[in-house]
Amino acid sequence: MTHFDLAIIGTGSGNSLVTPDFDDKRVAVIEEGTFGGTCLNVGCIPTKMFVYAADIADHIRESARYGVDATVDGVRWRDIRDRVFGRIDPIAQGGKDYRVNGPNTTAYLGHATFTGPRSLVVDVDGEQQEVTADQVVIAAGGHAVVPEVVRESGVPFHTSDTIMRIDELPSSLVILGGGFISAEFAHVFSALGVEVRIVTRGPGLLRAEDAEISQRFTEVAQQQWDVHLSATVDALKGDDSGVTLTLGDGTTVEGDLLLVATGREPNSAGLGLENAGVATLSDGRVQVDEFGRTTADGVWALGDISSPYQLKHVANHEARVIAHNLVHPDDLQAFDHRFVPAAVFSHPQVASVGLTEQQARDAGHDVTTKTQAYGDVAYGWAMEDTTGICKLVADRQTGQLLGAHILGKDASTVIQPAIQALSFGLGVHEMARGQYWIHPALAEVLENALLGLDVPGNA
Amino acid sequence: MTHFDLAIIGTGSGNSLVTPDFDDKRVAVIEEGTFGGTCLNVGCIPTKMFVYAADIADHIRESARYGVDATVDGVRWRDIRDRVFGRIDPIAQGGKDYRVNGPNTTAYLGHATFTGPRSLVVDVDGEQQEVTADQVVIAAGGHAVVPEVVRESGVPFHTSDTIMRIDELPSSLVILGGGFISAEFAHVFSALGVEVRIVTRGPGLLRAEDAEISQRFTEVAQQQWDVHLSATVDALKGDDSGVTLTLGDGTTVEGDLLLVATGREPNSAGLGLENAGVATLSDGRVQVDEFGRTTADGVWALGDISSPYQLKHVANHEARVIAHNLVHPDDLQAFDHRFVPAAVFSHPQVASVGLTEQQARDAGHDVTTKTQAYGDVAYGWAMEDTTGICKLVADRQTGQLLGAHILGKDASTVIQPAIQALSFGLGVHEMARGQYWIHPALAEVLENALLGLDVPGNA
Repeated sequence: MTHFDLAIIGTGSGNSLVTPDFDDKRVAVIEEGTFGGTCLNVGCIPTKMFVYAADIADHIRESARYGVDATVDGVRWRDIRDRVFGRIDPIAQGGKDYRVNGPNTTAYLGHATFTGPRSLVVDVDGEQQEVTADQVVIAAGGHAVVPEVVRESGVPFHTSDTIMRIDELPSSLVILGGGFISAEFAHVFSALGVEVRIVTRGPGLLRAEDAEISQRFTEVAQQQWDVHLSATVDALKGDDSGVTLTLGDGTTVEGDLLLVATGREPNSAGLGLENAGVATLSDGRVQVDEFGRTTADGVWALGDISSPYQLKHVANHEARVIAHNLVHPDDLQAFDHRFVPAAVFSHPQVASVGLTEQQARDAGHDVTTKTQAYGDVAYGWAMEDTTGICKLVADRQTGQLLGAHILGKDASTVIQPAIQALSFGLGVHEMARGQYWIHPALAEVLENALLGLDVPGNA
Repeated sequence: MTHFDLAIIGTGSGNSLVTPDFDDKRVAVIEEGTFGGTCLNVGCIPTKMFVYAADIADHIRESARYGVDATVDGVRWRDIRDRVFGRIDPIAQGGKDYRVNGPNTTAYLGHATFTGPRSLVVDVDGEQQEVTADQVVIAAGGHAVVPEVVRESGVPFHTSDTIMRIDELPSSLVILGGGFISAEFAHVFSALGVEVRIVTRGPGLLRAEDAEISQRFTEVAQQQWDVHLSATVDALKGDDSGVTLTLGDGTTVEGDLLLVATGREPNSAGLGLENAGVATLSDGRVQVDEFGRTTADGVWALGDISSPYQLKHVANHEARVIAHNLVHPDDLQAFDHRFVPAAVFSHPQVASVGLTEQQARDAGHDVTTKTQAYGDVAYGWAMEDTTGICKLVADRQTGQLLGAHILGKDASTVIQPAIQALSFGLGVHEMARGQYWIHPALAEVLENALLGLDVPGNA
C-alpha cells in the first residue's frame, strides 16, 4: 500500500490539479484510458479540427453565390484524420510520460475502485495496487450511452470515441440522436461528401437550445440532411457492409455506417463509490456541493462525472476551484455556474448562454426578446446570409440581459461580449451604447439585437 | 431665401440627425454627391462585400492544407460588382427619395457654401438657392488625397471611389500607399486573381498599428504581394493600357491599373467656412469642442470633416451625441473618444483598440504585454494558423487593460470583449477569470492573452 497526499482519478481536467502547491507532496495520478481525457482525445479538440476542414469544404461548395466558381476535387480523409491525431496523440503520450516520470507524481495506469474512505485499488495489468491518500479527487469523466435496442441488435456501430478514426469515408452515415454531437458530426461528414441521415426521438434537433434556435437549426438541417424527427427505432439489422434501421412508422433508413450519438453518462458505476461513502444522484452523477466536496470527507469531484454541465470549460473552472480548495481548507471557493455558455460547431454554428425565452418566462421575468437577423447587418449582407439570427432575452423592467442565443457564422465568438455582460452585470442599454462596435464587423449583429430590446434607455 | 430649424450638410451620418425630435420642424438636407456618404457608397459596406468574396476565394486556394483539394474555376468580377452595387445603389437612391419627398425635409442637391453665420447658398444645377437655419450641422465628410506627382503626371488612376466599379479585373494592379485602404484592396484584388504591387513611402504597412502588428502584417503581405517599402515615386508614365512608376532607387513597377490610396482629407475647403466664423485646424478638419460645437454659434460638425477618427462607428456616435445636443441646449452630451476600435479587413484581418505598446510606455505606464499566438490555442490548431496573434497591453501595477491589437481570422469580432472591458473599466484578471470562455472557440486567444499578462491576480 502506498500513501499519497493526493490521488486523482482521471487525467482530463483532473490532470491540471497537480499545481505548484504540490511540488513537495506526493500525488497519485490514476488513468484507465488515454491520458488527457475526452476533450483532448475524442471531444472538443479533434472534432473542431474536423469541423474546420468541413467549414472550408462548405465554403467551396457555397462560393458561387459570391461570384467565385470552384470545385471540390477531392477530400483526403486519411490526411485529415492523420493530421488531427498526428497532433493529438503525441500530446496524450507526452502527458502520460510526464506523469509517469514526473518528480512528484506516480502514475497508475488502470481502473480504480474505492475499497474504503480515501482508499483505492487500481487494477494495473491484472495486479491490484493499493493506494491511499489524504485527499482524493474523482475526475473520471463520462462515456457515450448506447441504447439497448442498438446493443441487443448486434449491429456494428460507432460512437464519438471511434468515428473519427475510421479508415475510409462511408458513402452514407446514419446518426442516431439529435443533440450537439449529432449536429457536429452531421456537418463534418456531409461537408466531406457523405450522405447523412439523422434519426432522432425528439420533434426537432438541438432541443436543449431556445425553442426558436432549435426550430431554425432543424429547418436548416432538413435542407442539408435527411432528418427523421419524432422517430423510434424498432429494429436494426446489418453488418460491416451496412446497417438498416426500421423506424416506428415503418420507414427504413440505411447507411454504410451507424453513429450512435444519443447522449453521455457519468463514469460513476464501477468505482466502488459505495465503499467510500460517496453518494450519487439519480442520473448517476457524483453528488457534490458548491465547493466540489462529495459526501465523503476528503473526497472531491469535478467535471463530467459530477457537474451539471458536460463542458470542458466548466470542468476546467471546477478544477481551478478544487485546486485552490485542496490547499485552502479554511478559505474554500465556490463553483460559479451562473452563466455557462455552450457552442455547437455545426453548419450553422450555435452558441448560447443564460436563460432561454421559456426559462425566463418560467422564472417570472417581464420578458422582452429581440431576434436580429444576420442578414440585416452590414457584414451579413457581405455574407449573403439568410439563416443567421442573434436572439436576446432580457428583463423589460430591470434592463438586464438574461440570455443570448446565436445561430450563424462564428456564433461561438460573437457571443463572448454577452457572456461578459451577464457575468459582470452590465445592463442592455449600457452595453449597447457604452462601447464602440466596429463597423461593419459581425459583432454588430449583437449590438443591433441589444438595441432592439424593449428596455429602459433604448429608444 | 428659405429658413429652416436645422440644415444638415452631408447625408452620411448626418442623415441620421433627422430624428423624431424634428417631426414638427423644418429640416434642410444638403448633398452634393451620392446620398448615404462614404461608408455606404464607397467605403465600409461595399468593400466588405468584396472582401467576403475574396475571403472565400482565399479559403479555396488554402483548402489543401486541410485535406480538401479544390480549384478556383473562375471569378465572375461583374457578378460580384453588380451584386454589391445592385444592393447598395437602391439604398442610396431610396435615401435620397425619402429626403426629397419626406414630410419635414427639403433636399438640396448641390454644393453648399456659407455666406454668413448659419446662412448658405446651395448651387443646385447652377441655380443659387439661399438657405438659413437656426442650427447647421456640417457633416460633409472627406475625400481621397492624390499626391501631386500623380496628378501632374497625367496618368490615369483610380481611388477607392472608382476602383470597385471597374468593368474588368486587370491582370495587375499597382497600389500607392500602405495604410488600411491599400491593405484591403490588395487582399480583394489578389484573392480574385490580380497581381498586386504595393508602393509605399513608409518602412512597413499599417504603420498606425502597434509596431508588432505592423511588422507581422508587413511580413505576411510580402509573402502574398510585391511590396515596395520606403519608396518614393520619382515619375509615372502610362495610359489606359497600363502605368509604370519609377521609384527613387530606380526600380520600375508596372501595372494595368493604378490605385491611389495615400490617405484622405476633410472636405472643408470650398465650404466658405471663413464666412461663417467656423475655424479649421491645420490638417483641414473643422474645429469642434467635446460637444460637437464649432467656433460659430449654432454650427456643429461631425464625422470625417471634423473628427480625429475617420471611422463610421465614430461618426455615428458623434451624430447621436449631436442629435441630442441640438434639442437639449441645457443638457449637452460629450463625445466619448476614449476607446475607439478600428479594423482592417485584409488578409489577415487586423483589429485594435486603445494604446499601442509604445503609446503606453510614452504615457508613463508600467507596461506589461502578452502576444498570444492563434496557433497555440485549440481553434488555432484547427485552423492550422501560423500567423495570427493577439497582443495585449496592460498596466502592471493597476491590472488595467490599456490596449488590444489582434491580427488574424475574425480579429474584428474577437476584439469586442476587449473593447467592452476597456469601456467599462474591467480589470485584466477579472475579465479573464470572471467569465467563461467557450472551449474551444477562437475567443480563447483573447482569454489566453489576458492570462499571460503580468498583472495582479494572474498566476
